[in-house]
Amino acid sequence: MVTLNCDMGESYGNWRFGDDEGIMPRIDCANIACGFHASDPITMLRTVRLALRLGKRVGAHPSLPDREGFGRREMKLQPDELTAAFLYQIGALAGILRAEGGTLTHVKPHGIVYGMAARDIETARAIARAVQPFGVPLFGLAGTHHETAAAEFGVPFQGEFFPDLAYGPDGGLLIPRVQSEIDLALVEARMRRALLEGQIETTDGSRRPVRFETVCMHSDPPNARDVAAVLRRVIDEHG
Amino acid sequence: MVTLNCDMGESYGNWRFGDDEGIMPRIDCANIACGFHASDPITMLRTVRLALRLGKRVGAHPSLPDREGFGRREMKLQPDELTAAFLYQIGALAGILRAEGGTLTHVKPHGIVYGMAARDIETARAIARAVQPFGVPLFGLAGTHHETAAAEFGVPFQGEFFPDLAYGPDGGLLIPRVQSEIDLALVEARMRRALLEGQIETTDGSRRPVRFETVCMHSDPPNARDVAAVLRRVIDEHG
Amino acid sequence: MVTLNCDMGESYGNWRFGDDEGIMPRIDCANIACGFHASDPITMLRTVRLALRLGKRVGAHPSLPDREGFGRREMKLQPDELTAAFLYQIGALAGILRAEGGTLTHVKPHGIVYGMAARDIETARAIARAVQPFGVPLFGLAGTHHETAAAEFGVPFQGEFFPDLAYGPDGGLLIPRVQSEIDLALVEARMRRALLEGQIETTDGSRRPVRFETVCMHSDPPNARDVAAVLRRVIDEHG
Amino acid sequence: MVTLNCDMGESYGNWRFGDDEGIMPRIDCANIACGFHASDPITMLRTVRLALRLGKRVGAHPSLPDREGFGRREMKLQPDELTAAFLYQIGALAGILRAEGGTLTHVKPHGIVYGMAARDIETARAIARAVQPFGVPLFGLAGTHHETAAAEFGVPFQGEFFPDLAYGPDGGLLIPRVQSEIDLALVEARMRRALLEGQIETTDGSRRPVRFETVCMHSDPPNARDVAAVLRRVIDEHG
Repeated sequence: MVTLNCDMGESYGNWRFGDDEGIMPRIDCANIACGFHASDPITMLRTVRLALRLGKRVGAHPSLPDREGFGRREMKLQPDELTAAFLYQIGALAGILRAEGGTLTHVKPHGIVYGMAARDIETARAIARAVQPFGVPLFGLAGTHHETAAAEFGVPFQGEFFPDLAYGPDGGLLIPRVQSEIDLALVEARMRRALLEGQIETTDGSRRPVRFETVCMHSDPPNARDVAAVLRRVIDEHG
Repeated sequence: MVTLNCDMGESYGNWRFGDDEGIMPRIDCANIACGFHASDPITMLRTVRLALRLGKRVGAHPSLPDREGFGRREMKLQPDELTAAFLYQIGALAGILRAEGGTLTHVKPHGIVYGMAARDIETARAIARAVQPFGVPLFGLAGTHHETAAAEFGVPFQGEFFPDLAYGPDGGLLIPRVQSEIDLALVEARMRRALLEGQIETTDGSRRPVRFETVCMHSDPPNARDVAAVLRRVIDEHG
Repeated sequence: MVTLNCDMGESYGNWRFGDDEGIMPRIDCANIACGFHASDPITMLRTVRLALRLGKRVGAHPSLPDREGFGRREMKLQPDELTAAFLYQIGALAGILRAEGGTLTHVKPHGIVYGMAARDIETARAIARAVQPFGVPLFGLAGTHHETAAAEFGVPFQGEFFPDLAYGPDGGLLIPRVQSEIDLALVEARMRRALLEGQIETTDGSRRPVRFETVCMHSDPPNARDVAAVLRRVIDEHG
Repeated sequence: MVTLNCDMGESYGNWRFGDDEGIMPRIDCANIACGFHASDPITMLRTVRLALRLGKRVGAHPSLPDREGFGRREMKLQPDELTAAFLYQIGALAGILRAEGGTLTHVKPHGIVYGMAARDIETARAIARAVQPFGVPLFGLAGTHHETAAAEFGVPFQGEFFPDLAYGPDGGLLIPRVQSEIDLALVEARMRRALLEGQIETTDGSRRPVRFETVCMHSDPPNARDVAAVLRRVIDEHG
């Protein structure tokens, strides 16, 4: 059964981000920010409580140590530094989960390091090495170094599909800097095509196969809760 | 059997702090800084490796979120914020320990929040609440709110004695801002008196009873490894 | 002539805060956050550009070093530390202003340290000492240590009135943790009473005199731009 | 007259770095860290006081926003972000200098961004754009984009020579991760060759011309104050 996941808990201190309350009821897996690109301990605690109250699976959403850049600026860390940074973040979330009677169910890397790991095996290994001790699946892009590195470390892997993003001609994700209103019909069409035909349409109009066990959506477009509702419906129908 | 504990891993990035290599072999319990007042993920990983290689017990040494002030400046956090901050830090260390095949053995709060919790039951409860899920002892000052709050939450408690600090007339610890050479004979005398007579001598020359299961020393005096050697010897003899 | 001032540029990295675009045209003085409780260099640069393009006066809005707490949590800094923190922040804004062809016109402390300085002369002096070298007025509460300390250091002083906040029976400001819709009629009545009668009404219904040269409003209530419009109109009429 | 400059004030909070007291008397120009890779406001204030008391020239030593990596990890900032970050840091130091009765005399970029700017004209321009409003010289590597970008923005330029570092076969500086004892005879020979012959010897034994108006040394080798003494003597003799 295909699941629906979303990055959650990306507020920070006094600043709000994303419609967590509107989205959480409609997803299966909450990827919870761990304080490096977004969030802080009390925001994590509140987000974990919201997810567990609704019976959702809770995963870690670790990133590069760059709050000001929201984990979207490339930084060159040594592999050991990156592994340690991910162990730290995943452990921190696991600690909060333990206090609330939940358990960690998956790990989904955030932002630029997600793309870096898809392209660079050393980055992917540094991440897989950090996930391995927790015995949970890594969410990533099937067919990239995400999957290879996970296999090397015996980490279960689940491929992701992104129906609220465009895919470039080479199959790469096109990440907008500012989130605007999502076209619900387009998202529905993409989701349906992926579930029924196992394909995505790239920006140059060609088709590419896509392999996935989980579907990722973003929390910050103004109509994110409607996106969640559409995806929930299509997945329940065809997933 | 009385144990010897020391705050370890208080370097940060490019900055060194404390003689961890010289002290670690001589202590029983390493209290490892968790990235809020000092340390960072890779420093934590290295410190955990050093401790486990030497077969030491590894505890968390969490603090207020104040790196610039080394966790020594009072900050007013809400109890929930403090609990979340401690869950986060303890969890982060536990995550790193899990990757290295170790387990968390205790929690020792750092700096000003240690003193705040001794005086204020709400602060002490916020801390005990964060330690409870990990099922390990809290190190603190016997007879203060540390002990009361631990009891309320069913957290095992171990009292601490500080032979490298002076105790004021009211029994409060006098913390120097800058660490200088420690008088080894004085430390030895204090340690012996505490072990044999169960007493400390305060700065006005009076005696007070002290109840402890563990002895805390600091890593930053220039002759810290000699302090460790003296304490190790006296504890092995009389502890 | 009474001026209207507002805290501006309190976004941070990827997080938005306040309706700067809607408010800036209607105020006289922009108090620009300096990167400690909110903002970052590029946000400061953009906010300065917006203010200068509209011909506004630009002041610094420095705070305690506490981004996670938005400068609203008490922290105990040494006076010298506080002076240095304020010199740093005011200088940083002055540097950005210099690049954009503007000049610093005032300083308005942010959040909890504003209240701390009103109650504690040492805190007020630490701030006045940092403002003095820039030769610009300090905005504060008339009749408190704000004004005393400014006088001691030869710093020009301008008293503030807060029409979008309630005043307690002792004349103290009541700061809500979450901003909700502001009652425009109430704000208008308060502003009119202050301008015409020189008085505020406290929450117990009594009247107290208020002395001010500038009026402060907040940028984060949902209808902040309407508040700005109301205050602009009343000030233009009676100010 | 060739000057001797050194990066100063690279302590942070409770952590010490470099022998500022031993070196400051022997140099001409102090490049003072600005709080991004190292330092904090009170450390900056103290370092400025030390420099001014000894009559030294005081420049800004700005960097990438990466304290944990000491400004030595590559990060991709937008040019506007980098300019704003440098304006912020230079302005902050200028503010502290103003309070202490000094004036800014130069800017010397720190760490990895120094090397990035030498190789990438956009990075170099982002920096030169931030120095321009202050009307002071930029210290950099002659013949690289440092010099080109400075010229484009009308920023005075002073080339640097690094006698305590090795130069690779391509003339690039070899930066050690950990500072060890410096060979004083080697430093003296390099300094003499550079002053008398205008040449450096690279690690493959070949010679390359070097053009410089200022000589840079580092504060963190254990014998840094002896390095300073040697360089002072040779420069006074031949510079």
